[in-house]
Amino acid sequence: MRYKIIVAYDGTNFAGFQHQPNQRTIEDVISRAVNKIAKDPEPSIDIFGSGRTDAGVHALGQVIHFDLSIQMTETNMLHALNSLLPLDVEVLQVEIVPDDFHARFNTKGKRYEYRLALGEFVNPFKRNYTGHWKFPIDIKLIQQAITDLEGEHDFSSFVASGSTVKDHVRTIYEASARLDEDSNEIVFEFYGSGFLYNMVRIMVAVLIEIGSKRRPVDDIPRLFEVKDRNQARGTAPASGLYLKQVYY
Amino acid sequence: MRYKIIVAYDGTNFAGFQHQPNQRTIEDVISRAVNKIAKDPEPSIDIFGSGRTDAGVHALGQVIHFDLSIQMTETNMLHALNSLLPLDVEVLQVEIVPDDFHARFNTKGKRYEYRLALGEFVNPFKRNYTGHWKFPIDIKLIQQAITDLEGEHDFSSFVASGSTVKDHVRTIYEASARLDEDSNEIVFEFYGSGFLYNMVRIMVAVLIEIGSKRRPVDDIPRLFEVKDRNQARGTAPASGLYLKQVYY
Repeated sequence: MRYKIIVAYDGTNFAGFQHQPNQRTIEDVISRAVNKIAKDPEPSIDIFGSGRTDAGVHALGQVIHFDLSIQMTETNMLHALNSLLPLDVEVLQVEIVPDDFHARFNTKGKRYEYRLALGEFVNPFKRNYTGHWKFPIDIKLIQQAITDLEGEHDFSSFVASGSTVKDHVRTIYEASARLDEDSNEIVFEFYGSGFLYNMVRIMVAVLIEIGSKRRPVDDIPRLFEVKDRNQARGTAPASGLYLKQVYY
Repeated sequence: MRYKIIVAYDGTNFAGFQHQPNQRTIEDVISRAVNKIAKDPEPSIDIFGSGRTDAGVHALGQVIHFDLSIQMTETNMLHALNSLLPLDVEVLQVEIVPDDFHARFNTKGKRYEYRLALGEFVNPFKRNYTGHWKFPIDIKLIQQAITDLEGEHDFSSFVASGSTVKDHVRTIYEASARLDEDSNEIVFEFYGSGFLYNMVRIMVAVLIEIGSKRRPVDDIPRLFEVKDRNQARGTAPASGLYLKQVYY
């Protein structure tokens, strides 16, 4: 029986999604809970996420699948997992899916949000949940430039060097930035076919540079052209990034 | 020169306000910053808070004073402190005050807020910032009972055993509870002359019991009468409590 689960997590106290020896990871805590339900003496069940998230990055709707020979209703599985998981991870939804569903290979798109707190000082309650920018910034310049990211492009200037992926062509269906006046945060949203390593955080860093006039407003087409990460060296902090939704 | 500062902090990673050996406390991190500004080779400047907060309790407006022979503008002091403080503490305001101002002895009142998240599971992003109640609860019963707390009463049933204070008579000027539908939280507010050790958290625990029909709605006058903590044993978790404002 294949289970698809939708998971939210506060990434603050995790070394990221993927298993690493002697580190606390999302993969490990969820895998431990699933194997506890399976009651296998030897933990043998693997879980598959839609993709990794880095240390400190949050999820509002990460998707994971796993196979379990035990038959349980979706509701019972939801309760069983949440009772076993630590409080910084919550399963929001459980669905029994056909055996050919794959959380990673079947993704059609992903939606990310990035929250950038403005103002001189970091609000203590936001330090782990936003990026922070204390200098003047013009949201209009960001809104003008961000549409250049939409469409199919080679994102070679927007991928961190750790990436092993060869093909850097991705499609962004929707990219937007708005000022949330209540919280005094700029909220970026990116909906695309797929995202390269650190791609959202590099795009946000470029947009911040544009908004604060450290980079021309029409620089993004040039960055697509040059295909060179050295021309876009910034990476916005992990704390502001949320994996919001995965599409199948 | 006496400085009064208003401070916000995320209490999650602190063992409370008051200095304790080998623990990270609010008093220690602020005292360290002040002494760094004073450039004393031996840290000698004491800071005085309006009162303690427990481990995990937050502040939106804690007040502290200290004396410094160095003369600095309020703005410069604000920047100097915030540049030295860790990100979970923020100085919101600095005021130079007369030498007879005392952050603790001059308090006329305090306002606390308690946030109680409802719903079956704990939201990972709220676990350190709210209490949590997963059973049915009737806000109307709470709103009916909470007004019994207003006025001058002997709060002996509402004080934790660790307290060394003899006089348990306090006045609550205002006590309210409302349901915040956006966040699905009950927000309690208490404005009073002063509060005993754990008093707000014990009052909230009693109100939760009333709202979930584990205690009669008219039980608070009886608790004032009996003056017995054993009749009100609950203490709502620290994570939901915020010291909101101190009045002088």
